[in-house]
Amino acid sequence: MSSTVKSHKPHDRMAAYLTEDMGAVNRLIAERMASEHAPRIPQVTAHLVDAGGKRLRPMLTLAAAHLCGYTGGYHVHLAATVEFIHTATLLHDDVVDESGQRRGRPTANLLWDNKSSVLVGDYLFSRSFQLMVETGNLRVLDILANASATIAEGEVLQLTASQDLATTEGIYLQVVRGKTAALFSAATQVGGVIAGAPDAHVQALYDYGDALGIAFQIVDDLLDMQGDAAATGKNVGDDFRERKLTLPLIKAVARADAEERAFWVRTIEKGKQVEGDLDHALALLHKHDALIDTSTDARIWAARAVEALQPLPDHPVKTMLSELADYVVERIT
Amino acid sequence: MSSTVKSHKPHDRMAAYLTEDMGAVNRLIAERMASEHAPRIPQVTAHLVDAGGKRLRPMLTLAAAHLCGYTGGYHVHLAATVEFIHTATLLHDDVVDESGQRRGRPTANLLWDNKSSVLVGDYLFSRSFQLMVETGNLRVLDILANASATIAEGEVLQLTASQDLATTEGIYLQVVRGKTAALFSAATQVGGVIAGAPDAHVQALYDYGDALGIAFQIVDDLLDMQGDAAATGKNVGDDFRERKLTLPLIKAVARADAEERAFWVRTIEKGKQVEGDLDHALALLHKHDALIDTSTDARIWAARAVEALQPLPDHPVKTMLSELADYVVERIT
Repeated sequence: MSSTVKSHKPHDRMAAYLTEDMGAVNRLIAERMASEHAPRIPQVTAHLVDAGGKRLRPMLTLAAAHLCGYTGGYHVHLAATVEFIHTATLLHDDVVDESGQRRGRPTANLLWDNKSSVLVGDYLFSRSFQLMVETGNLRVLDILANASATIAEGEVLQLTASQDLATTEGIYLQVVRGKTAALFSAATQVGGVIAGAPDAHVQALYDYGDALGIAFQIVDDLLDMQGDAAATGKNVGDDFRERKLTLPLIKAVARADAEERAFWVRTIEKGKQVEGDLDHALALLHKHDALIDTSTDARIWAARAVEALQPLPDHPVKTMLSELADYVVERIT
Repeated sequence: MSSTVKSHKPHDRMAAYLTEDMGAVNRLIAERMASEHAPRIPQVTAHLVDAGGKRLRPMLTLAAAHLCGYTGGYHVHLAATVEFIHTATLLHDDVVDESGQRRGRPTANLLWDNKSSVLVGDYLFSRSFQLMVETGNLRVLDILANASATIAEGEVLQLTASQDLATTEGIYLQVVRGKTAALFSAATQVGGVIAGAPDAHVQALYDYGDALGIAFQIVDDLLDMQGDAAATGKNVGDDFRERKLTLPLIKAVARADAEERAFWVRTIEKGKQVEGDLDHALALLHKHDALIDTSTDARIWAARAVEALQPLPDHPVKTMLSELADYVVERIT
């Protein structure tokens, strides 16, 4: 299960190490996204699934199970479960955000319609539920049920917090835990649970996934403000245009003088944006070191992820997980 | 647990008989729809839950558990589960149908927005999942996971079948099983399973719920064509305007001559409807006995529901379930 080519990217090395299992996950996904009666379902799902993505979440489940010495087959079900939950939330997110692009391709809600995205998302969520029930492991079900509720709650919280300048870093963290970290931590945790790992190891896997997810999302929000569209598949300033209070913005708003505050009220709260506003917003972020401080926060969370691995047994996968946490923040330019 | 007032309506009598349990279900629903972080969630949910509805589905679960002699407490969890799934699908349905009214009140997507309806629906679905996991009964989880998938698949099928004159009565039945009967049959079935009922009784409960749900939906579709808005909370002809191929329409289309077919192609397939089209559609339904034949179908399914109860033990609840099936088709004028 090891690759002869040493890639710079830890998730590529992990994919190479887990290549057999990932093949099984992909086959299970293809099998379960089928629908005898409603061909629209595999069409919409394939559009997203084939577009690739890094399959990071299912890989985390497989990696955790390997790290904990699992020899059964249910980690494949759980990895597919996690990917289906992720795909379902992407479909619903694109409807909620009224997005037109995802992974460099038109979104499903644009290619078909919002209706299809809502209903196919529901279908994938149900399918994920069937997959996890098949494992017959109630603790795993409990973890994934709680993660699902945290995800949905985080999405609603993001909806109500968006456009609200009173959003604090604490609320941001809750939103991020919901929209990203809850599924990362559930993904790693269930890998340990299905392997019958001791509580301390399961806790370590949870902590790792949680910190990795938070670092990952902070970096994502940072790249939205400074990345280039070719590398990220997103346009710089999308979050600004959608009036999302991400961490760099929250920091800049907290440090704003009266005139700057008026700018944020107009552009974010009232949504009255004109030509040149994005450039001015970026200038304010620089002026207040909001981007530098945000990347420091991301590095702190990545370091916490590495540290969380400490109680776990030595294993090639452990090294890869550690490198993965470092790599997440390496994306910051 | 019995009422002194003898109501004409069997579901009122059942509600009176199950009043203590229904109180517990309502308390559990109120407790679990809360969200510490996102107040939008209980607002949206309460709008729907308080609007009443007959709470028919949770009552079916409680009734089935009583009928099978259950003395534990998890039937309350399962009843709340079923109501949450139902509420989640209503929220998503209203987005998909672009509805403005539900139970005589403006829909949540109109009062808040589509985003809130999508995300709060996801939250309730997750909550339902947590509730059912708490029962620790894997067979129950399996049934509800399968029902969820059937519901979602049915919704997608309805989406693609709508506006398609080639929709057959067979496809209609699949859609109806998905959108309505799957949750009815899961509701009755899990009541039996949690009570540890023998397989023959669980099967009887499934068959009853399935036939009752189909009868219920056929009547609903029939009332859309002949009911009055005050009694049904819907406007006559909503399905026609939304170009849904319901059973009366499918029958009329199957019996159409060339000129009539051109009318259906224009109004349903092409969606070019003008003043007077609904009246003409209703005239065609009458001409071809489509409404009479549809009500006959509904009565056949109601009779099947009554017959399905036969293997179950004698019990006051059994009589009420039987009367409920008769009552569903009594709504036909």
